[in-house]
Amino acid sequence: MAERLVVVGGGAAGMSAASAARRVEPGLDVVVLEASGYAAWGLCGLPYYAAGVVGDPEALVSHPPAWFREVRRIDLRLHARAVALDPARRVVTLDDGTDIGYGALVVTAGAAPVLPPLPGLEDPRVFTVRTLESAIALRRLLDAGGARRCLIVGAGYIGLEMAEGLAAQGCDVTITELLPQVMATLDPEVAEGVEATVRTHADLRLGVGLHGVTTDGTRLEAELADSTRLVVDAIVVATGVRPQTAIAAAAGATTGPAGALLVDDAMRTSLPDVFAAGDCIAAYHRVLRRPAWVPLGPTANKTGRVAGTVAAGGTARFAGVVGTAVCKVFDLTVARTGLTLAEARAHGLTAAATDSVARSRATYYPGVEPTRTRLVHGPDGQLLGAQMVSADPATAKRIDVIATALHAGFDVATLADLDLSYAPPYAPVYDPVLRAAQAVGSQATDASA
Amino acid sequence: MAERLVVVGGGAAGMSAASAARRVEPGLDVVVLEASGYAAWGLCGLPYYAAGVVGDPEALVSHPPAWFREVRRIDLRLHARAVALDPARRVVTLDDGTDIGYGALVVTAGAAPVLPPLPGLEDPRVFTVRTLESAIALRRLLDAGGARRCLIVGAGYIGLEMAEGLAAQGCDVTITELLPQVMATLDPEVAEGVEATVRTHADLRLGVGLHGVTTDGTRLEAELADSTRLVVDAIVVATGVRPQTAIAAAAGATTGPAGALLVDDAMRTSLPDVFAAGDCIAAYHRVLRRPAWVPLGPTANKTGRVAGTVAAGGTARFAGVVGTAVCKVFDLTVARTGLTLAEARAHGLTAAATDSVARSRATYYPGVEPTRTRLVHGPDGQLLGAQMVSADPATAKRIDVIATALHAGFDVATLADLDLSYAPPYAPVYDPVLRAAQAVGSQATDASA
Repeated sequence: MAERLVVVGGGAAGMSAASAARRVEPGLDVVVLEASGYAAWGLCGLPYYAAGVVGDPEALVSHPPAWFREVRRIDLRLHARAVALDPARRVVTLDDGTDIGYGALVVTAGAAPVLPPLPGLEDPRVFTVRTLESAIALRRLLDAGGARRCLIVGAGYIGLEMAEGLAAQGCDVTITELLPQVMATLDPEVAEGVEATVRTHADLRLGVGLHGVTTDGTRLEAELADSTRLVVDAIVVATGVRPQTAIAAAAGATTGPAGALLVDDAMRTSLPDVFAAGDCIAAYHRVLRRPAWVPLGPTANKTGRVAGTVAAGGTARFAGVVGTAVCKVFDLTVARTGLTLAEARAHGLTAAATDSVARSRATYYPGVEPTRTRLVHGPDGQLLGAQMVSADPATAKRIDVIATALHAGFDVATLADLDLSYAPPYAPVYDPVLRAAQAVGSQATDASA
Repeated sequence: MAERLVVVGGGAAGMSAASAARRVEPGLDVVVLEASGYAAWGLCGLPYYAAGVVGDPEALVSHPPAWFREVRRIDLRLHARAVALDPARRVVTLDDGTDIGYGALVVTAGAAPVLPPLPGLEDPRVFTVRTLESAIALRRLLDAGGARRCLIVGAGYIGLEMAEGLAAQGCDVTITELLPQVMATLDPEVAEGVEATVRTHADLRLGVGLHGVTTDGTRLEAELADSTRLVVDAIVVATGVRPQTAIAAAAGATTGPAGALLVDDAMRTSLPDVFAAGDCIAAYHRVLRRPAWVPLGPTANKTGRVAGTVAAGGTARFAGVVGTAVCKVFDLTVARTGLTLAEARAHGLTAAATDSVARSRATYYPGVEPTRTRLVHGPDGQLLGAQMVSADPATAKRIDVIATALHAGFDVATLADLDLSYAPPYAPVYDPVLRAAQAVGSQATDASA
C-alpha cells in the first residue's frame, strides 16, 4: 500500500478518487493537485449558473476546500499545476518546479476545450464554459447588462444548454455550427426533431463555421464562414473538448480512442502505480466491447472512486458504460443510450433503426406528450441503442430503462416483455419504451409475412 | 384453427385478445360478449374521470364499439352476460338463454369488487369505482353539488386516487381502512411516508373498518367499527377486488393463487381450447418463480394479446410480471416492483431491506425532491424488489429501471453499476437508484469490517 497517494486534478473524478482512498485507508497521505482556484465543482452545472438558474457559484461545489481538508483530511492544493511526471522516480513536478513524490498516482486531468485556430478568441468577451472562472466572468457580463447579443459557436449539448439559458435571460442568441445538424451525438433524423425547437428560440445556422473574431477594442464582430458578419456582445465557444493526457502520455502511458488514456477495469494505466479516471480516460464500452471516449459526469465520479479505492489498496472494478446521456434543450428532453445508427455503422456493425412515436401518459391525462424513439438494432434483433426526444421530462428515465436493458444484453423482443409501471399520470398502458420495441417486432412480422 | 373465437369480457384484456386474433387470422369469426354497456374502456382512468381531471367518459374508451365492429370486424355484443360454459359441447350460455358455440374461447372476465357483508351498501349514494356506470353516477352527484362530505372505505391505491380527486374538488374526505397502514402493497415503514401526505388532505382513520350504513331515505350515515358515526353525502367502497372465475371454474378450469385461473405461458387454461387473460388469471411472477395474482392494466393488455394470438393459431408467449406498479397519491409518486419485505418473507424467502434517501435532481436545480427508496434483497445480494416514494414524478420511471434489473436477474451490485442518464434538470450524478444500491453495498462493507 502506498504511503502517499497523489491525485492530479480536483474535479469530480479527482475528489472522488481522493475520498475513496481516504475511506479505504484512514492513515494514507492523500494529496490533490488542482490547477485552478476551485475543486469539486460540477462541470455540468456551469450552463445553469451562467443562465442564472443557479444564483451562487458555491452551489455548484459539493463541499468547500476546508471541508475536504478538515473533515476528509485531504491535502487539497489549489493553483497547483502538475506539468511533468517521472514514473521511474515516482515524482510529479509542478509548474513552480516543486517535485512531489508518490507511492501511487491518480491522473484525473479531465478534458480541455478545443478552440478553433482563429484570431480574436483571446478577447475577454469570448468564453468557454469549461471552468468556473469562465462562467463567473460571463455571469458578471450578463448581470451588468453587457451581453444582449450572444453568439454560440457549436450546437452540441453544451452549446444548446447555453443557448437555452441565455435566451431565457432575454439575450438574442445566434448559434453557428460547422456540421449540418445539431447534436452530433444523435442520428441526423433524430436531430431534426430537436432543430425545430431550437429555431423557435435562437437563430440557428447549420453547416457554417466561425471564421474569425475581430474587435476595435469596443465593438466585437464575428465573421462566419459564409462571410456573414455579426456584431455581438459575447461569444461562447462550445466546439468540443479533448482529453488532457499530456503529462501521462509524455511519461509513456498508453493511449487509445481520441487519444484518451487506456486503463484496465481497476483504472490502472500502463505505467506502474499510475491510475487514471474521469474525462481523460477511454472507458470500456459494453455495447462496443472495447474502450471508447465518452467523457461524462457519472463516469468521472465512478471511475474516480474505483481508481482511488484500488490505488489505496482496496478492491473495486468499473463495469463500463453503455453510452447513456440526456440533455434539456429548451422544452425538450433529448436522451440517448448505446449506439446511434451512424456510430454502429462506423464501427462496422450491421444495424438498422426503427422510429416510433408514442404518447408519454394516458391519452386523457394532462401533460401527455408525444415521445419519439429510435431503436437501433442488429440483424437478429440485438438491441444496440436508442434515442428519445419528448417534451415529457420522464424521457430522461425512460432512456435508463433501455440503458439497463443494454447492460443486460437484452434483445428487442425482451425489451418488449418488460413489466413497466403504469398509471394514467405517468405512462400509457404500453410505455413508449414498449411501443418502440413492438414497432421493431411488427416490422419484422411484416417482412416475414 | 378455430372457425369462431368467442371472448368473454370486453375490457382491456378482451379487446386486446379480439384485436390480436383478428390480426393473426383475417377470416376468423370473432365474437366479444360484454356484460356491461361499455367496452374497451380504461379501468385505471375511472378515478380521474370521477375527479373531473377527464371531462368526458368517452375519453376513457380506446375506440367506440362501431370502430371495433366496422374497422376491426369484431362482433362486439354489449349487455351480453355469459353465465355458463360447457367445454365438452364448446358452448357459452348467455343470461337470456342463448347458446353460442366456439372453436376457441378466451375468458377475460376481470375482477369484481369485494364488498364487505354489511347492511346499507345498496344505497345509490354508495359507489364502487369499478365500472364506468358507477363512475358516471358519482360524477353526476358531484356535478349536482350533492357530494360535499365523502367517505372512502379502503386506503389502497384506488381509495387514495379517489381521495385525491374528491379533495381536489373541494370535498371533505374521510378515509377509513381496516388495516393499520395505507397501501397494503407497501411495507409498513414505506407506507408511513405516504400516510403523512394523505393526512394533510383527508381525515385518515387506520385500523378502523366500516360497520354499516344506514339511511332514513335522505340522511346517509356510516358507522365505523370504533362506533364513530359519520353523516356523509357519498360513500366510495374500494376494499379490493377478486378474480371473476365463476363460469370457468364451474366448468372445471384449474385455479391457483387467490382463486385466479391458472394458465400456461400461452394463456391456455386446463380446459381444451379455453384461454384466459387479464385480471381473472394468475400470471407467472418472475421473482417468485411461480404464478401470482397481480391484476393490473399492462398485464391485462399483454396477456389478452397473447391469448388472442394463440387462440387464433398464432404464436406468442407471456414473459411474466415482476410486480411493478405506480400510483399518484396527492403530490407523491409511490412506486414498487418485485417483492416487498413482507411479501418476500411470506413466501419463505430470506430477505432484508435497505432504506435510503437521495435527491432526485442536482442539488441546485429547481424541482429537486428527496426520493426514499427501499431495496429488498436476499442474503447473497440478490435483488428482490424495491419501493420508492417521492414528490418527483420521475420516480415512476426510476422504478422501471429496477423492474428491468429484476427481469434481468441482476444482483444489487450490478444495479449499482448501471450507466444511467445524468443532467442537472433530471438527476444527480448518482441517480437515486444507484444510491439505493450503494447503500446496500456500504452496509455489507460495514458488516464485514
